Amino acid sequence: MQAAIALYPGFTPLDAIGPYQVLVNVPGAEVVFCAARRGTVPDEHNLIHFAVEHTFDEVRTPDVIVVPGAPNARKLARGGDPIVDWIRAVHPSTTYTTSVCTGSLLLGAAGLLDGLGATTHWASYDELRTYGACSTEQRVVTQGKIITAAGVSSGIDMALSLVAAMYGDLVAQAIQLGIEYDPQPPFDSGAPSKATPDVRSLVLTRMEYLWEHATV
Amino acid sequence: MQAAIALYPGFTPLDAIGPYQVLVNVPGAEVVFCAARRGTVPDEHNLIHFAVEHTFDEVRTPDVIVVPGAPNARKLARGGDPIVDWIRAVHPSTTYTTSVCTGSLLLGAAGLLDGLGATTHWASYDELRTYGACSTEQRVVTQGKIITAAGVSSGIDMALSLVAAMYGDLVAQAIQLGIEYDPQPPFDSGAPSKATPDVRSLVLTRMEYLWEHATV
Repeated sequence: MQAAIALYPGFTPLDAIGPYQVLVNVPGAEVVFCAARRGTVPDEHNLIHFAVEHTFDEVRTPDVIVVPGAPNARKLARGGDPIVDWIRAVHPSTTYTTSVCTGSLLLGAAGLLDGLGATTHWASYDELRTYGACSTEQRVVTQGKIITAAGVSSGIDMALSLVAAMYGDLVAQAIQLGIEYDPQPPFDSGAPSKATPDVRSLVLTRMEYLWEHATV
Repeated sequence: MQAAIALYPGFTPLDAIGPYQVLVNVPGAEVVFCAARRGTVPDEHNLIHFAVEHTFDEVRTPDVIVVPGAPNARKLARGGDPIVDWIRAVHPSTTYTTSVCTGSLLLGAAGLLDGLGATTHWASYDELRTYGACSTEQRVVTQGKIITAAGVSSGIDMALSLVAAMYGDLVAQAIQLGIEYDPQPPFDSGAPSKATPDVRSLVLTRMEYLWEHATV
């Protein structure tokens, strides 16, 4: 099983690393990071630089793809970034095509979500609808072989569900125990319907700033 | 506020990226990745290569340090890796000294945990005790300014608690909502006391193999 995690300048690292930490523990799995160009790929804050050794052109038949989100994902989706062409090209032969956070906007731009249920970061539901998707607050949405996950940290839940679907519950449970994923957040404000209006508006202001000023 | 995330060859990426994704969103915070040497630092599977620009020598007075774990952390802790000296040197002036997973073994080797409550990855409780710590299954253990977190994914919970302690609940809740941390794992097998014996022994076999054969 080859799982390809697609990177691009500006990506949100936890979107990629959450699923990576699950998939890399599947016995026999090969995980490949790929990007439009070989070289270092900066994250959304230009603080992490991943050295990527494989180009999209070299990864043509992955079994699973994971597309992370980013503050600049809506711009890249609208502008037709190279990752959109790659998603469109490899999707027909994948076993599962997945996204985390606003990575689903890139699936949408590739034409994959028209008429389907899907999710994304909660602050981008409207944007996701412009691609014909029916967005929901559900954390992980499976529609045939397309799995979209909610914001950032949801990639861990998504990847565990994916492993369970492909390899059975025992493998997924062992990986969950291996990464000691027994979450105990100190607050219950992780979803828009659970957070207070104060907290929501603080985050929205910050997100809007990031969308506008994303320079990476 | 400067938060330093210390890397070393073989580190477990989610241990570092979970807290990073929380801390980087604190308004005004500066997050720095540092390592013994400048250059690329490979993760535990030699699949991710982080380009690190700051050496331990250059990061002398961080306010917060985060020490991730790794399959080779017990070897590095026993052998006195450069990270152990760095922890010992910077700890007296930190506001908080934190670890995720077996990163606590490195705090232990630096002499920080003698007689204190602490945690680590569940498969390393015994090893942690060799440093004089009283290990528990608690997910996040705070002892004065030392905070240790359980395995891999617990760094997210730890960092949210840390932000709440330093900046108040509103900031922590906003970051939680920003990364949509409303965890919904598909199984309840993320802690040793919750997983079945089958799952536990599957993971232990794998961990023991990794400790023995960690080459990075």
